[in-house]
Amino acid sequence: VSTPPGYLGADARIRSGPAPELVEAGYQLEIDDAALLHDGLALADLAHLVSLVEADEVSTKEIKPLLDAVLDMAGKRPEDIDYDPLYGDAYNSRERVLQSQIGDNAGWLHLGRTRREAGRIAFRLALRDLLIDLYEEITNFGSALADKAEEHAQKLWADSTYLQPAQPSTFGHYLGAFAEEALRHLARVEAAYEWADQCPGGAGGAGGTRLRIDRTKLATLLGFSRPTNHCRDGMWATDGLIDAVTAATQAALTVDRLAEDLEIFASPAFGYVELDASLCRASVLMPQKRNPYALAVIRGGAGTLVGRLTGLLTTARTPSARTDNWLYAYGEVAGSLKLAIRLVKLGKAVVRGLQPNKEAMKKIAYEHFVGAADLAEDLALRDRVDYRTAYKIVGRAVADAYERGISQLDPPQDLMALVEARTGQGAASPDRVREHARGCRQTADWAQLRRTNNAEARDRLITRARNLSRQDEEEPGLRSSWGETRGVLGP
Amino acid sequence: VSTPPGYLGADARIRSGPAPELVEAGYQLEIDDAALLHDGLALADLAHLVSLVEADEVSTKEIKPLLDAVLDMAGKRPEDIDYDPLYGDAYNSRERVLQSQIGDNAGWLHLGRTRREAGRIAFRLALRDLLIDLYEEITNFGSALADKAEEHAQKLWADSTYLQPAQPSTFGHYLGAFAEEALRHLARVEAAYEWADQCPGGAGGAGGTRLRIDRTKLATLLGFSRPTNHCRDGMWATDGLIDAVTAATQAALTVDRLAEDLEIFASPAFGYVELDASLCRASVLMPQKRNPYALAVIRGGAGTLVGRLTGLLTTARTPSARTDNWLYAYGEVAGSLKLAIRLVKLGKAVVRGLQPNKEAMKKIAYEHFVGAADLAEDLALRDRVDYRTAYKIVGRAVADAYERGISQLDPPQDLMALVEARTGQGAASPDRVREHARGCRQTADWAQLRRTNNAEARDRLITRARNLSRQDEEEPGLRSSWGETRGVLGP
Amino acid sequence: VSTPPGYLGADARIRSGPAPELVEAGYQLEIDDAALLHDGLALADLAHLVSLVEADEVSTKEIKPLLDAVLDMAGKRPEDIDYDPLYGDAYNSRERVLQSQIGDNAGWLHLGRTRREAGRIAFRLALRDLLIDLYEEITNFGSALADKAEEHAQKLWADSTYLQPAQPSTFGHYLGAFAEEALRHLARVEAAYEWADQCPGGAGGAGGTRLRIDRTKLATLLGFSRPTNHCRDGMWATDGLIDAVTAATQAALTVDRLAEDLEIFASPAFGYVELDASLCRASVLMPQKRNPYALAVIRGGAGTLVGRLTGLLTTARTPSARTDNWLYAYGEVAGSLKLAIRLVKLGKAVVRGLQPNKEAMKKIAYEHFVGAADLAEDLALRDRVDYRTAYKIVGRAVADAYERGISQLDPPQDLMALVEARTGQGAASPDRVREHARGCRQTADWAQLRRTNNAEARDRLITRARNLSRQDEEEPGLRSSWGETRGVLGP
Amino acid sequence: VSTPPGYLGADARIRSGPAPELVEAGYQLEIDDAALLHDGLALADLAHLVSLVEADEVSTKEIKPLLDAVLDMAGKRPEDIDYDPLYGDAYNSRERVLQSQIGDNAGWLHLGRTRREAGRIAFRLALRDLLIDLYEEITNFGSALADKAEEHAQKLWADSTYLQPAQPSTFGHYLGAFAEEALRHLARVEAAYEWADQCPGGAGGAGGTRLRIDRTKLATLLGFSRPTNHCRDGMWATDGLIDAVTAATQAALTVDRLAEDLEIFASPAFGYVELDASLCRASVLMPQKRNPYALAVIRGGAGTLVGRLTGLLTTARTPSARTDNWLYAYGEVAGSLKLAIRLVKLGKAVVRGLQPNKEAMKKIAYEHFVGAADLAEDLALRDRVDYRTAYKIVGRAVADAYERGISQLDPPQDLMALVEARTGQGAASPDRVREHARGCRQTADWAQLRRTNNAEARDRLITRARNLSRQDEEEPGLRSSWGETRGVLGP
Repeated sequence: VSTPPGYLGADARIRSGPAPELVEAGYQLEIDDAALLHDGLALADLAHLVSLVEADEVSTKEIKPLLDAVLDMAGKRPEDIDYDPLYGDAYNSRERVLQSQIGDNAGWLHLGRTRREAGRIAFRLALRDLLIDLYEEITNFGSALADKAEEHAQKLWADSTYLQPAQPSTFGHYLGAFAEEALRHLARVEAAYEWADQCPGGAGGAGGTRLRIDRTKLATLLGFSRPTNHCRDGMWATDGLIDAVTAATQAALTVDRLAEDLEIFASPAFGYVELDASLCRASVLMPQKRNPYALAVIRGGAGTLVGRLTGLLTTARTPSARTDNWLYAYGEVAGSLKLAIRLVKLGKAVVRGLQPNKEAMKKIAYEHFVGAADLAEDLALRDRVDYRTAYKIVGRAVADAYERGISQLDPPQDLMALVEARTGQGAASPDRVREHARGCRQTADWAQLRRTNNAEARDRLITRARNLSRQDEEEPGLRSSWGETRGVLGP
Repeated sequence: VSTPPGYLGADARIRSGPAPELVEAGYQLEIDDAALLHDGLALADLAHLVSLVEADEVSTKEIKPLLDAVLDMAGKRPEDIDYDPLYGDAYNSRERVLQSQIGDNAGWLHLGRTRREAGRIAFRLALRDLLIDLYEEITNFGSALADKAEEHAQKLWADSTYLQPAQPSTFGHYLGAFAEEALRHLARVEAAYEWADQCPGGAGGAGGTRLRIDRTKLATLLGFSRPTNHCRDGMWATDGLIDAVTAATQAALTVDRLAEDLEIFASPAFGYVELDASLCRASVLMPQKRNPYALAVIRGGAGTLVGRLTGLLTTARTPSARTDNWLYAYGEVAGSLKLAIRLVKLGKAVVRGLQPNKEAMKKIAYEHFVGAADLAEDLALRDRVDYRTAYKIVGRAVADAYERGISQLDPPQDLMALVEARTGQGAASPDRVREHARGCRQTADWAQLRRTNNAEARDRLITRARNLSRQDEEEPGLRSSWGETRGVLGP
Repeated sequence: VSTPPGYLGADARIRSGPAPELVEAGYQLEIDDAALLHDGLALADLAHLVSLVEADEVSTKEIKPLLDAVLDMAGKRPEDIDYDPLYGDAYNSRERVLQSQIGDNAGWLHLGRTRREAGRIAFRLALRDLLIDLYEEITNFGSALADKAEEHAQKLWADSTYLQPAQPSTFGHYLGAFAEEALRHLARVEAAYEWADQCPGGAGGAGGTRLRIDRTKLATLLGFSRPTNHCRDGMWATDGLIDAVTAATQAALTVDRLAEDLEIFASPAFGYVELDASLCRASVLMPQKRNPYALAVIRGGAGTLVGRLTGLLTTARTPSARTDNWLYAYGEVAGSLKLAIRLVKLGKAVVRGLQPNKEAMKKIAYEHFVGAADLAEDLALRDRVDYRTAYKIVGRAVADAYERGISQLDPPQDLMALVEARTGQGAASPDRVREHARGCRQTADWAQLRRTNNAEARDRLITRARNLSRQDEEEPGLRSSWGETRGVLGP
Repeated sequence: VSTPPGYLGADARIRSGPAPELVEAGYQLEIDDAALLHDGLALADLAHLVSLVEADEVSTKEIKPLLDAVLDMAGKRPEDIDYDPLYGDAYNSRERVLQSQIGDNAGWLHLGRTRREAGRIAFRLALRDLLIDLYEEITNFGSALADKAEEHAQKLWADSTYLQPAQPSTFGHYLGAFAEEALRHLARVEAAYEWADQCPGGAGGAGGTRLRIDRTKLATLLGFSRPTNHCRDGMWATDGLIDAVTAATQAALTVDRLAEDLEIFASPAFGYVELDASLCRASVLMPQKRNPYALAVIRGGAGTLVGRLTGLLTTARTPSARTDNWLYAYGEVAGSLKLAIRLVKLGKAVVRGLQPNKEAMKKIAYEHFVGAADLAEDLALRDRVDYRTAYKIVGRAVADAYERGISQLDPPQDLMALVEARTGQGAASPDRVREHARGCRQTADWAQLRRTNNAEARDRLITRARNLSRQDEEEPGLRSSWGETRGVLGP
């Protein structure tokens, strides 16, 4: 048996050190996630140590220096730790700090656990927080839309396709469609959260640990709803990441579509809406010009997010247990969620500050025969002719009016009456618009409940670890059964 | 008022005819969806006519020729209709057929409904069917994995990361991770189905119809669970499409990851598995060679699907009510689902025919010190030294063994015993693997129930329409209230 | 040595037959490319046979039946061959036809050549044709833009950012920017063509054939500019595919951006342009409505193409020589190019039929102070105050005018004079616009030259093969050196 | 005329201030580019001022304070400037600094130029630098591959498809394919550079400035090869960005494919290669394990880059002059290039440190009948039987050998002799491999020449500006023709 390829001897790392190209492209990438993972890594470490003690695998006494040192780190901010890519990822830097503080006792931290497990736990904790934030921002955005939909439930507006005026409707009905769409993102965020809320802890390498760690207890310690069903899946699968970023991208796309519309509606040619001054930007060259800058920020952000999602999907196409699909994921997923949160938040500000111009909307509605289909319908129903025939009659009248330079039919139609007659569920009549808007107002209870629960779990864990550290004298001895039941070593 | 840009006069279409470039790039694209939409368009037409009669907007007598002609079309196959891009999309071709059969009476079909509404209904019906198929194939794939996981629950296998042997596990545990992942796709498909199962009917242009059509009744007639909450949203939003294609892509990515692994595992160097002969392909040049062709089909398909999803996402970034994001969507979404279905199905065949080579897996496991971490753990726990110290001791022993050309430590470890000691939830011990596998077996009840319900709804609708056509004599007169309550026309 | 995994025995294929899932997902996919590859496969076969004879590896006599049969197939259309996925890809179906016609003599076709090599050659030939078509359509599109730019070089138009009127310009200058962008795509198509124009023939498996085939001669026979530099690279690399689809996508994106603008400009609110009637579509419900359908076709197509490119990129992320990145590529690449060609062609039709509304453009320009920056500039230069100060003065005047309900400054500006003063290279003055437009008119000489050359090479190859078949009596004997120089077999 | 939507009055910005959501999502995004643009903005400012003086639009005297202040800023590092998102983008922060230093004189900077123009120039300068770096790293990577290809030109290696051993080849031939592919990226980088090397300066808003700035001189001042052909295109088109990121992604995909292979080849099962220790990483849990970490970094990076490119493409689908496609682009494009540079650099380190295991490669080659096709070829040629028949004979012999547990045919083949017989261009024979490798070694002259030229141009510009500042006393008066030729104002 020759030395297997890739095997470098136990201390090879020390002898050779990482190549500068590796530090620059790899470790730096991972160290960039340190701030994201910082809190979670401390919690993962604490929970692991508590679990080891609870499982009687180690005594509190044995690991008291380590427990105290980790507790100390849990109170620090990321910038207080010397996260340095020269030594690897955030976990490695933390290990170095512990080693320098308490020497070999730090080595107990690695018993029965991979660096990866700590990272995965920390990441899922961070991901939960981001999903909660996203949920909240979506509810704010949706509620702002619902408010405005109700406010403008009677504002006549020409619905259009291809930007060609189509039929009479209201600006409130228009806005309500976005509120409805926004609501659907909440279910997506919840589904992504469900995945993030499962604890991958106790996975050993990927096949589970031999230590007597109770995975359900460990999950509870960390404030997760439950352990993952399968250790290897919990350690390696990335489908949950895709769900999270898809939810974020979908939410951003809703804001984007609104922004695409509003940029057109805010043009002087349309003049439908005005953005709040605080969301616009002056030109340095042109004194007459104020640009709806917020809308471009939203639209570019949504496009960028589509790319982020694609990158994740592309990278997901890889064999199992190969790390390439996880190496970039922490930063990419968190960055994507943060970007989406900023965009949804900005979208909310846009909606809240929106000033519709009633006259401009009315003018377009009245000058482009948007009641023509209703007229044809009336004709068909009154004279009992088929709709296509009625359509042709009205079509000819419209053509004739254009030729004679007239922008309305005779007798003129009361467009608002036509809107009011649209009384079906989810239709444009003001009552229906208001009814729908009321149904769209969501509280962020879901998010607040989880935020509170998660914070409490965190506090409980730290308290539990502190108490453990204080009470180590009283603890019973370790179970003596190790060697017999699991070990292969002699006494 | 001058002729507005884009306005061509009522009969412009007839005079000019579409440009050949438009037929080639636009109408042909839409006609390509004819087979997909064919059945649904007939149902949408029937439901619309039944609704009109039920709402007393038309009498059965008035539309009997149309009702009969549409019933006749509902019994035909797509190839029996002359779908011709010269006349526009599938709807236009159907209109032409009706017109040629029954003349102007065909014109009643358009009363209170857009072409788009018919298409959207037909598409959602087709999408539901595809999602049901996908669901079923995923359950089959997952069950095949669960069967194999159970079958190989005791087959020693070296779990690895970066393809480097890591720790002892079983091939069953490995396969179980994919089963677990597969199950999660079911929830995604269900979520996508929920969207598809809402009826956009009764939307008028997008603001709802003035006709007395009950949207809930219309939804029920068509076998949908309920109408969409908001007419404009139901007509234009594409987030549900993205959900469907994301679910399909995620499912394909699971099969892909398995295929990525298996292509490596099937190499003679690994020799872990053999594919069934029916999934391989001979070389035309090299007589010794049989290629695991099925795996390449799966992997390329998953990559292609990522692109399909991206295309959909990219196109979704558009203003509202602009049709570019829907024009290609029917074909793209259906094509993506069909591709995913084929891939998942092929994945199931791969799993079912998989022949693991027990000896080859055992050999790798025993020659690469995969029990080293367990040994270090034993050392730490027996001698109460920290794990890092134990790790270094074992590391030196491994290095020493390599140098002396020995591939195992002394005394040798019983790797299977190490696996059996991994007894936590979702861990690699055979009992846990079997327990997990049993939990992964899913029936496709969800899918079958929906398939049955949908078929029954279809039959009921056709029966309802037939009965209507037969009973028209007995029908009461139309309500006389039209002109008073809604119309603007005189008597 | 046990039977290696994946090895099924020489006749396994016959015994087992392909799984239906494999036929459906794999062979059908490949058979779908039959029409695309049909011509090229015949040429590849002919060139291979001619090369074998020229290299004295076989005598014409030996392969005359095969040569004649292949010549016969070269004259047929794809639909005349029974391309059947049950037997594999297009190559397999052709093999079956030959086998049924001439029996074992068909077996000579595989001497020294893989199925893959034939496919790669056929694909590059098809790709060249598509790139030539794309090139031509881009020149047409660019010339149409240049024509219109020149035609409207004096048409006042308010350039805008964020759709907010910015500065005076002309509609011709606006259109010229697209012409300029279109030209750049030609270089991209040429670069992609250069790759496609290299012959992968003579690659053997991937390491080159032992037969005395001259790769340069073979390339010339097939009308390629030269052989690929490296056999394995020529067989497997996909970067050239990405270039081709990127060029196509970039071209489509230019048309898309124009279509995005025009859909807004064609709205009645803007009223800047009118599309030709032959590119619009009537509404079935709304008699007053004509939709700029062509623009939606273009925009959705561009988004779809971005997805196609992404799919290709995603699939390109794979180990070498693994086929997943090639299996779908033939269809995806060709489909992408065809889609782009249709879109660019439609874009040309849109430009040719564009009717700008001079008055509407002038009105917007004059009502939104687009000369304000010029006024501030004048102030700065006349009174020698810094521009920021001048900007504030004008800004206040504009604000004041708005407040007083005046839409122009006093004295009024001659906006066209301001445009005419923009005389720098590529600027908006009519002379510069015309100068630029003239420079943008490209002939499609590049494309026509290649089309002619390629057609001539094709004819020469067929003639060469025909002559060979007729002259076989006169051919000299085979070189006798085989066994000595290359073979390992005894006499 | 009412106040147009979006118009806020000249001092609205001061009164309202930007919304915090806008600062967070928009200005912060732009400020993040400050370091990237810092140098270029100073150069753009200097060139603009020099151009104004050269065009006699301002006297040096008038702008001396500004010129000196900008020269001062040109000597500072990004961290020396208070780039603060509260005030907008980097340009705004610089404006603030100038304003605070020299008061109103700073206002001359905006004469005839938009903020955007300065940004575009700075970005193209930065992009050029990054493309030069990328070019250099690709040449290094390609040369490393060529070196290794030559070094291993005689190392027997079984070429494979689907990871199934196919035919005898050499490891040098394998590596040469990657060198060949790498070379093609250089042309892509050059094409992208050509776009970046055109100066958008002098564009005014987008229609060109009225000032007498010579765009060609301005381009030369800044070290660009020439001005863009069209002002609006030069300001807004993003196709060049896509070229740059496509080139970077393509380069990364080549490194990725190599890394995909090597990760498999480095597995103990294959044992083909060993990575240098400095590119591997130890496991914290498993003492026997060293992971080829560099390869995962490369592979994940390539997938991430595909997403970056997609994001850019998605965002490019937007109307013209709308800024969403440029807002994120500076950071996204620069970040993508930097990522690609890191990956290519790491790829070079991987290749340089690659240790092939000759025995392992030989073993696989000799145990899987990779000479079978050559044997069939020999049979066909010696016995003049068609290849398909010969193939069947050999196939049966191989099957028979497997059944009898024999891994080689009798008589055994000299596989290296078979390789040596592959003497065609680009084939696997050692001589051809060496010949090809020599052709692949590229100098980075192209890059070095441009780097030098660009640095010299930079120095010249600064010197020119310095001299101007010193010589202002001697300058002639301004031309007096302004008011007459361009202005609309009276005296």
